[in-house]
Amino acid sequence: MWPIDCIAHKRDGLVLTDEEIARFIRDYTAGRIADYQAAAWCMAVYLKGMDATETTALTKAMAESGDPVDLSSIPGIKVDKHSTGGIADTTTLIVAPLVAAAGVPVAKMSGRGLGFTGGTIDKLQSIPGFQTELSEDAFLRQMQDMGMAVISQSGEIAPADKLLYALRDATATVESIPLIASSIMSKKIASGADAIVLDVKYGDGAFMKTKERARQLARTMVDIGRLAGRPTRAVLTSMEAPLGTAIGNSLEVDEAVEALSGKGGRRLMEVVEAIGSQMLILGGKVPDEAQGRACIRRLVENGEGLKKFRQFVRAQHGSASWIGKQPLTRAPQMYTAVSAETGYITAVHGRALGELAMRMGAGRARKEDAIDPMVGIRLFKELYDPVRAGEPLFTLYGNSQAPMEELARQAAEQITISDGPAPVQEPVVSEIIM
Amino acid sequence: MWPIDCIAHKRDGLVLTDEEIARFIRDYTAGRIADYQAAAWCMAVYLKGMDATETTALTKAMAESGDPVDLSSIPGIKVDKHSTGGIADTTTLIVAPLVAAAGVPVAKMSGRGLGFTGGTIDKLQSIPGFQTELSEDAFLRQMQDMGMAVISQSGEIAPADKLLYALRDATATVESIPLIASSIMSKKIASGADAIVLDVKYGDGAFMKTKERARQLARTMVDIGRLAGRPTRAVLTSMEAPLGTAIGNSLEVDEAVEALSGKGGRRLMEVVEAIGSQMLILGGKVPDEAQGRACIRRLVENGEGLKKFRQFVRAQHGSASWIGKQPLTRAPQMYTAVSAETGYITAVHGRALGELAMRMGAGRARKEDAIDPMVGIRLFKELYDPVRAGEPLFTLYGNSQAPMEELARQAAEQITISDGPAPVQEPVVSEIIM
Repeated sequence: MWPIDCIAHKRDGLVLTDEEIARFIRDYTAGRIADYQAAAWCMAVYLKGMDATETTALTKAMAESGDPVDLSSIPGIKVDKHSTGGIADTTTLIVAPLVAAAGVPVAKMSGRGLGFTGGTIDKLQSIPGFQTELSEDAFLRQMQDMGMAVISQSGEIAPADKLLYALRDATATVESIPLIASSIMSKKIASGADAIVLDVKYGDGAFMKTKERARQLARTMVDIGRLAGRPTRAVLTSMEAPLGTAIGNSLEVDEAVEALSGKGGRRLMEVVEAIGSQMLILGGKVPDEAQGRACIRRLVENGEGLKKFRQFVRAQHGSASWIGKQPLTRAPQMYTAVSAETGYITAVHGRALGELAMRMGAGRARKEDAIDPMVGIRLFKELYDPVRAGEPLFTLYGNSQAPMEELARQAAEQITISDGPAPVQEPVVSEIIM
Repeated sequence: MWPIDCIAHKRDGLVLTDEEIARFIRDYTAGRIADYQAAAWCMAVYLKGMDATETTALTKAMAESGDPVDLSSIPGIKVDKHSTGGIADTTTLIVAPLVAAAGVPVAKMSGRGLGFTGGTIDKLQSIPGFQTELSEDAFLRQMQDMGMAVISQSGEIAPADKLLYALRDATATVESIPLIASSIMSKKIASGADAIVLDVKYGDGAFMKTKERARQLARTMVDIGRLAGRPTRAVLTSMEAPLGTAIGNSLEVDEAVEALSGKGGRRLMEVVEAIGSQMLILGGKVPDEAQGRACIRRLVENGEGLKKFRQFVRAQHGSASWIGKQPLTRAPQMYTAVSAETGYITAVHGRALGELAMRMGAGRARKEDAIDPMVGIRLFKELYDPVRAGEPLFTLYGNSQAPMEELARQAAEQITISDGPAPVQEPVVSEIIM
């Protein structure tokens, strides 16, 4: 008896048919399947898994549950980029203008941040006047004019995913690779991307704690992309330490502008080049990674990336006069801590720093929380950097009530400095899954 | 975060603590845990199982969720009997008066039937005037006066089980041994039984299809009983064929009266003796099965069982004048089919006959359906009996619209007659689990 049979099939470890999955998602979205039935189904999927064809069917069903975006009027291969979420990860704001400057259209729908990782939309909203909600017409016009737009996800993008995600969150069924993979890919497909590059992170500051789990998730999403006819590649990146040096919304915009001006950090630029080169390959602009990386570097050096960023900010009604002249961030209190020791930075606990920044107001603990765009943490050293006693380690940007000394003490605890020989460096980008 | 942690613990195969289980059931019953959370939890229990201590904790938590019945004012060891449900199983109406006649108090709360197996309450309600809803006072007075009562389960008996059962029914999580065992045992414990004898059936016409699954369920329930301080034994019985010869409500009352008058069928009386002797052992009246069986036979022969039945029917306001004089059943149409062949009865498809009787009006497909107390099927032969061409095989009792010839044709298809040597008989009672 429908839908109980479908729950029982998954419970018994059977492979569901495309039609079963499509009908389940359709009926659930329409309210014909109760939350408690979908919850039992999610737990069965969590415990029994789904193969690549099932996961693809689930992805397509969720992508088709709302009003998919039609980008066919925009010439070229539209390449989207998605990160599973990390600390100090402002990659999108750097790579999107660079790739767009190379002639690959980037039409990005982005979410708000939740927890200790910021959302691209939140970062952009720290720019005075910036509009993240565009009409469909304005969005398509901007894409045709300049080949780049970043807008808020609307409610109509994959509503089934939205419903299912809220349910999973309340029923201990979030951390299932087929469910995570289909959730991410359904939104990308519904957003109209022709091709997708994924940044799948692992480590202490990431959703996936181990490289092995990250690889499984990446492999699952790449397979979905292939089966759904949307070429997809994934970059596995380490989140053992913050990616960039800025944690906080306006601070991350500042870091993006610096990176586009040729002053990006080592780890951040490594990821920018890795993702950017894959986007250029899928966009048909370069034949291989080496030429992709060279192209990205050239667009930083010749200022074309920064020019595209400025053009993009203006197009979405943001103030752009500060870009390249002064930092965006203005906080009521700033506090710079210096190193007490000489040695090497051997650990930076990104997750703890992210949570600290969240408590300072940079992030949301609950969806309905407001955020403070100008607060956060700016690091002066990256993982593995040498440091001398007395050198600045970080600056905290706080609101007028923030207990800066106490916060600085807590932040300093998250950075480990060791003497002895230079540490062995683990690469930030370890694999490309295709 | 509660209750998500509790769902996650079971999802990950951990053993839940007594307190976790008690709190989960308490919060669910009080509406503080959503149906979708309980559904995910049930699926996790289904797929990961529960050990004996968890299952006992769940049983106790559900038993305590309402107002447990207090039978302590009734002297003696109160022994309850429960069957997992079978075709033509009127054992309760025979064994309860026999055991009560032996001096062991039998206070039974019974449910209505659903599907193709009849409920004891439905059968009793075919007796004109019979009351199955007694006030607590009247119920206790009757127990003190005559040591036997059979009443409808009230909503306050283990309401958590009622909620959870409805949820499981809609989420493909019914057939889980810990969940079935705790559901049954919670109602028995909440009904005030000091000791419990279970009839666990297996085969085509039973909920448990194999003897192995039935043995697992029986073992689980016997363990719960021991851990909960309610001595419990289980009889494993075959449901490969109908137990008795009557399928239908008043027909089963007629069969009970015949059995109490010494005219019970071979298979039915085997189960009556097996269950009755275990009830007498747990009730402290006999030391072993042999003496228990002898006692049951004696109480049939000397008419004490029938006398108790008559007394019981009168106490609950039922008409008793017909008992021992004429059948209760009066149907608008009767149709008797005779055998076309000579040989042995080698198969009687009880489930199909039960479904046929249900379609004739003897059972409910849905909870809200009304039933017709007087319709059904009476068999003249049991499994393994010899039969000659022209001998009556069964009589159908139908309502005035019933297409009797067509129904008889369908019923005849469910009875297989083979020539050749007498078949090897599988015993109806195969094991006692204690």
